Amino acid sequence: MLGYQVFEVEEGETQNMRKIYNFNAGPAMLPYEVLLKAQTEMFDWHNTGMSPMELGHRGSDFKTIADDAEKNLRELLNVPANYQVLFLAGGASLQFAMVPLNLMADKPKADYIETGIWSKKASSEAKRYGDINIAARAQQDADGKSYVPTTDTWNLSDDAAYVHYTPNETIDGIEFPWVPKTKTPLVADMTSNLLTRPINVTDYGIIYAGAQKNLGQAGITVVIIRDDLIKEPMQRTPTLLTYSVQAENHSLYNTPPTYAWYISGLVLQWSKAQGGVQALYEKNKRKAETLYSVIDQLPEFYESRVRKDCRSMLNVMFYLRDESLTPKFLEAAKQIGLINLRGHRVSGGVRASIYNPMPEKAVNKLAEFMTDFAKKS
Amino acid sequence: MLGYQVFEVEEGETQNMRKIYNFNAGPAMLPYEVLLKAQTEMFDWHNTGMSPMELGHRGSDFKTIADDAEKNLRELLNVPANYQVLFLAGGASLQFAMVPLNLMADKPKADYIETGIWSKKASSEAKRYGDINIAARAQQDADGKSYVPTTDTWNLSDDAAYVHYTPNETIDGIEFPWVPKTKTPLVADMTSNLLTRPINVTDYGIIYAGAQKNLGQAGITVVIIRDDLIKEPMQRTPTLLTYSVQAENHSLYNTPPTYAWYISGLVLQWSKAQGGVQALYEKNKRKAETLYSVIDQLPEFYESRVRKDCRSMLNVMFYLRDESLTPKFLEAAKQIGLINLRGHRVSGGVRASIYNPMPEKAVNKLAEFMTDFAKKS
Repeated sequence: MLGYQVFEVEEGETQNMRKIYNFNAGPAMLPYEVLLKAQTEMFDWHNTGMSPMELGHRGSDFKTIADDAEKNLRELLNVPANYQVLFLAGGASLQFAMVPLNLMADKPKADYIETGIWSKKASSEAKRYGDINIAARAQQDADGKSYVPTTDTWNLSDDAAYVHYTPNETIDGIEFPWVPKTKTPLVADMTSNLLTRPINVTDYGIIYAGAQKNLGQAGITVVIIRDDLIKEPMQRTPTLLTYSVQAENHSLYNTPPTYAWYISGLVLQWSKAQGGVQALYEKNKRKAETLYSVIDQLPEFYESRVRKDCRSMLNVMFYLRDESLTPKFLEAAKQIGLINLRGHRVSGGVRASIYNPMPEKAVNKLAEFMTDFAKKS
Repeated sequence: MLGYQVFEVEEGETQNMRKIYNFNAGPAMLPYEVLLKAQTEMFDWHNTGMSPMELGHRGSDFKTIADDAEKNLRELLNVPANYQVLFLAGGASLQFAMVPLNLMADKPKADYIETGIWSKKASSEAKRYGDINIAARAQQDADGKSYVPTTDTWNLSDDAAYVHYTPNETIDGIEFPWVPKTKTPLVADMTSNLLTRPINVTDYGIIYAGAQKNLGQAGITVVIIRDDLIKEPMQRTPTLLTYSVQAENHSLYNTPPTYAWYISGLVLQWSKAQGGVQALYEKNKRKAETLYSVIDQLPEFYESRVRKDCRSMLNVMFYLRDESLTPKFLEAAKQIGLINLRGHRVSGGVRASIYNPMPEKAVNKLAEFMTDFAKKS
């Protein structure tokens, strides 16, 4: 415990301090309180006279930051003792390589579930290292809505080293409404939904998440890995990409991205101050429902292309029926401070990324705008 | 060009704002002006309403930051057009793997020069990927002083893919007094001395440098690579560890460490504002001479274990003749705000890391303290 009160400001008060609401998919907006703390401590972390970015990574000051971040993450997710928590340099895309390099040395085969662009990127990288079986893909129902097929229809391999999936697809706006039960270890890319809802860590072999959505700034990735999966990697795996080396060295084999780690620590403190994962989940559900209900109430104007049970709680993807109005929609939203709502270049449309730090009042403002825009158009 | 005046404060004025002088080897101290700018822009980068860490990496705002950083680095080092400049996630230790993985696909052999702990780490990692020849090692003269043997004595291979060396060894305090001329491409780990003295980039095939000493915060590494060395890597090289992929994508294949990149950009602006590399070099030389002259003037009290011509300008390593006094020395220095002077755990002794951001007045204060301490002991 750092032993001090981190956040002294109320949401209602603080959000007035910001000029805009940033709905970017990632790097995404950060809580006001986190930025304020970072600003306040820029020259002097805890009376050391040093900026957090000037602290030596082998010193007791940085150890306090690192230990506190791990402790809070373990507490928020109730991580069992037989799981290691790593904070690694780079983004989740580096895990697309690290997972197969570390898990396929003795079993050169793995199952992947492709439900969108990110899970396809993961499987595509994995193919460089072994035999990859695409056990299932997202489907479209008779109405053209995307959905995830149920686990019993998957073509899983008994001899796979693991099953990889992406519980939330940020570009496609598809989220798994259930956690798959698999015989082989389940590996989950939770970059966009870690800490957004309660999970049972023991359901997974490995969970990884790039920080830039719910955990801080880009450049650091959290990996939660069960002890028995920390083993001898494939030959020629770079030392730094070896889970066993990182676990033995508490993610300090070389100089880690110390400032990104510090910011993640602040976000974790903030997450606790919000009431933890259950409270964040309830808020996130309300936020998503607010937006989807506008879409559903104006079916002649807006369209979701995802089946209701598979709609993402974090990335609300939708289209204007008249797509020629999309640029006008985006521009009008921007005029009232609702920015970065453009869908990914691959998908088009509109996307509102509403991770943990996005306040409810921003979502309410967007919902109101959507209703107004439809009326006026 | 960002088109605004970045730094409005004078060194003499600003350094009074800091409580301590931090001589840590890295993560090292940052210029006051850089921290001030980062603090000022924490909530609002250039009137966007967003923190630099909230900017999307595919947007025009971040592109301005990235392009400006590259332009300034090219200008400061006069980087020719046939060299690519990359800003990659992770530290220099990741380059210990990337260099062999990318350069040894067709020639599985390389020469390494071992002059200290960091070059040994580099060669040790390279041995995982091919046939590594240690072409030379640091030597000790008759007085027990370490030095780098001249290039003509090196056992270089004609068929090596490259020669790797570490121009400045931060732990050992050894710096090359010359640039080796080699038939095969020269690869230099300049983590501790890039931008500290003028260099001729065309002398090198690859230059790489982790940012946490002269270039910003930990978590990002600059790579300057000649076009002909960007080629097909070894099989199973992770996509993100492939120079060609990073070069084709302008270091934006996946989400980069955007905030670390931003801080590097500020440090590069600051470096220009200091008068560029030549001016920084002259200041660095004066700083090093100040400390070494105290050591040389008090030979009964202090000892340098490096031959004079090979002494590091950036990491001034020395020992107290009576090593039992070292803890007292460190504690007394700390009392007057001169901190993190303890030598690396492997080397012991005292180390003053005095990279570009370390002001001359801090070095003068340390020199004065060293003289006083010797007199009083």
